Amino acid sequence: MLQLSRFPIKTSKDAQKVSDNRSTSLLLQAWFIRQEMAGAYNYLPLWLIVLKNIENVVREEMNSVWAQEILMTSLWNKESWLKTWRWDTVDVLFKLPASGNKEYALNPTHEEVVTPLIGEFIQSYKDLDSMSVYQFQTKFRNEARAKSGLLRWREFLMKDLYSFHKNLDDLDVYFEEVRQAYVRVFNRLWIGQDTLYAFASGWAFSKYSYEFQTKLEIGEDNIYVCSDCGQAHNDEIVEWVFSCVNCKSAKYEIVKTSEVGNIFKLGTKFSSSFGLNYLDEKNSTNEVVMGCYGIWISRLMWVIAEYMMDEKGLVWPESIAPASHYIIVIWEDNLEKAITLAKEIETKWWNVIIDDRTGKVWFGQKANDADLLGIPNRIIISPKTLEQGGYELKGRKENEGKIIKI
Amino acid sequence: MLQLSRFPIKTSKDAQKVSDNRSTSLLLQAWFIRQEMAGAYNYLPLWLIVLKNIENVVREEMNSVWAQEILMTSLWNKESWLKTWRWDTVDVLFKLPASGNKEYALNPTHEEVVTPLIGEFIQSYKDLDSMSVYQFQTKFRNEARAKSGLLRWREFLMKDLYSFHKNLDDLDVYFEEVRQAYVRVFNRLWIGQDTLYAFASGWAFSKYSYEFQTKLEIGEDNIYVCSDCGQAHNDEIVEWVFSCVNCKSAKYEIVKTSEVGNIFKLGTKFSSSFGLNYLDEKNSTNEVVMGCYGIWISRLMWVIAEYMMDEKGLVWPESIAPASHYIIVIWEDNLEKAITLAKEIETKWWNVIIDDRTGKVWFGQKANDADLLGIPNRIIISPKTLEQGGYELKGRKENEGKIIKI
Repeated sequence: MLQLSRFPIKTSKDAQKVSDNRSTSLLLQAWFIRQEMAGAYNYLPLWLIVLKNIENVVREEMNSVWAQEILMTSLWNKESWLKTWRWDTVDVLFKLPASGNKEYALNPTHEEVVTPLIGEFIQSYKDLDSMSVYQFQTKFRNEARAKSGLLRWREFLMKDLYSFHKNLDDLDVYFEEVRQAYVRVFNRLWIGQDTLYAFASGWAFSKYSYEFQTKLEIGEDNIYVCSDCGQAHNDEIVEWVFSCVNCKSAKYEIVKTSEVGNIFKLGTKFSSSFGLNYLDEKNSTNEVVMGCYGIWISRLMWVIAEYMMDEKGLVWPESIAPASHYIIVIWEDNLEKAITLAKEIETKWWNVIIDDRTGKVWFGQKANDADLLGIPNRIIISPKTLEQGGYELKGRKENEGKIIKI
Repeated sequence: MLQLSRFPIKTSKDAQKVSDNRSTSLLLQAWFIRQEMAGAYNYLPLWLIVLKNIENVVREEMNSVWAQEILMTSLWNKESWLKTWRWDTVDVLFKLPASGNKEYALNPTHEEVVTPLIGEFIQSYKDLDSMSVYQFQTKFRNEARAKSGLLRWREFLMKDLYSFHKNLDDLDVYFEEVRQAYVRVFNRLWIGQDTLYAFASGWAFSKYSYEFQTKLEIGEDNIYVCSDCGQAHNDEIVEWVFSCVNCKSAKYEIVKTSEVGNIFKLGTKFSSSFGLNYLDEKNSTNEVVMGCYGIWISRLMWVIAEYMMDEKGLVWPESIAPASHYIIVIWEDNLEKAITLAKEIETKWWNVIIDDRTGKVWFGQKANDADLLGIPNRIIISPKTLEQGGYELKGRKENEGKIIKI
């Protein structure tokens, strides 16, 4: 339960900085985030609740494919990045000078960490039956030009999962399991129906990799959707002449999207660099085959905000909203009734915001804030509703409330 | 529920690197952590569960003093650090070169971030009734010589809380509330009785600051405990002649400790640098008074491990253990019974580890691992216990188990 009268972050001294997209303006206005530096945001209390709710949805689905959660460091030694030749080739890699003439990498991705780490636990084929780990960790990218809003962040949160297998066949099976887990994640976050599963270019071990791309008017990507079979392709694999990888059709439609996840068959690229081998049934040495699977958690939050918002403000899916109910108290006399009701609601739902602000905060502003914040259910307790025997309940997307008896 | 037969991290290809303290050796041996770089550790699954359990204890107590959880960035702009003159004076500050000839700070502490951030929400004295925020965030320190084990980390997790007040009197009141919350935290983590509340040197606004120091033989600090009244002092405030700040006694005893938390009255040092003012009842402008309160979460985990361990291995307090029960399955036939029992236990307790490893993992190793991992309760299901009508239950510190009927 969160009483706005005691909530520190409620008014703003200055007018909000206008952002280049509307969801960011709404998130600033609704006390969710603050940007001070291009490409790096501070998370205020309600935003942090949304983040944790999204993490929990993703965590449940990653656990459902038997992956184990770990947490790897942000700093990493230069030697590991030299082994994969990526110290000098990854242009967004932050290189951190340190005491004793040392230099560390500030990880933008964790293959260089996870491969030797998990290698320690792999000896024989028996260790490779279900070997996958994931983490929620901050990533850093030395972007030349960071943008406000959805893209090009210098610091952001990612869920990255890595899997380890005996051969490409085993990888294929697990890859499909994770793909289905991703579909479940985006469905639970209410963006599933407009999130495309698009072919993208692969590496030596796989012709294609795959992106999860959510349709958005302000999206930064162009996705080519086959007019005949509906298969999506990213722009990397569309050559001079478009040809659908599925049905070979030459007709397509371009859709604006934003990337929320990608899955990739790494093959033996990293096992090879770090000497990650296993002994098979015949006691021969083989290279471990790897896959990696990312979800851009911070960007996903923005995409959901942008995708769901309406003319009144933000709209959160019930699965991740910062609160299930927003109770507007009209007279202070009714605060006690509101607290009792909130406690009852919290036994069945999750968090309740009570707008018990006094002073110059009138009903109109409270009702606007309930909409702006995007809380799924709004309740009004006033002398008028009590006269009618209860309180008024209204869904965020409904125009009219109805009286519920207490 | 966690079945070790499906758990990726269970055996180790190489012998563990020996550390300079026993708790770190145990944590390596028991698959909790891996160090690849001095002063930075990867957290494996069981360690991450302990971390989250500790975070939850701390979170509950911070919420009990009406603080709101936020999350601030790791990267920060050089200008803010120049404003407080700390860019050139904090010797452990990592300075990160970035695109476009920029330089960022990689935050070792967040006063430079939180002061302007929260300043945006402070206008009048009315905004200062209960204004405190906290976060769990990674901190980075450019240590010249990082150590293994408890100290001198380059990357570690901290809980830091910042409070904002009208005047020193208000700060004093809130400061005492947080101090009591800290006492509750350390009690709930079973180290309260040996955690001293020690005077340390303050700044211009307060004669003293305060440290929470846990008694440990391998501790890096010397704490001077008054032989007459028991008051603790750190070495900074012990001059040529010891004199207890409480009773003026000159007798003391030196105790080895490790610092797990500190609380500090910042006064107006940072408000002054960032122009953080408020209008009082008479419409005059005043500087906001601040306090800051840290708990070294990563070090706290080590201190608890070191403090609680015994000759058999780690011992976790029930409040934060990675699992409440460790079930040893002797014959595979009994796995189903173990799973049924685990489900029942998890309705009342939390996580259950089922040791259903087969192959060359015999009973002796399973029993040793149950002790090594420090799980509070061990259960054995075997033909022998079933013959006696149930399973054997033994507490981690008990020598004999007893049969519980199914």
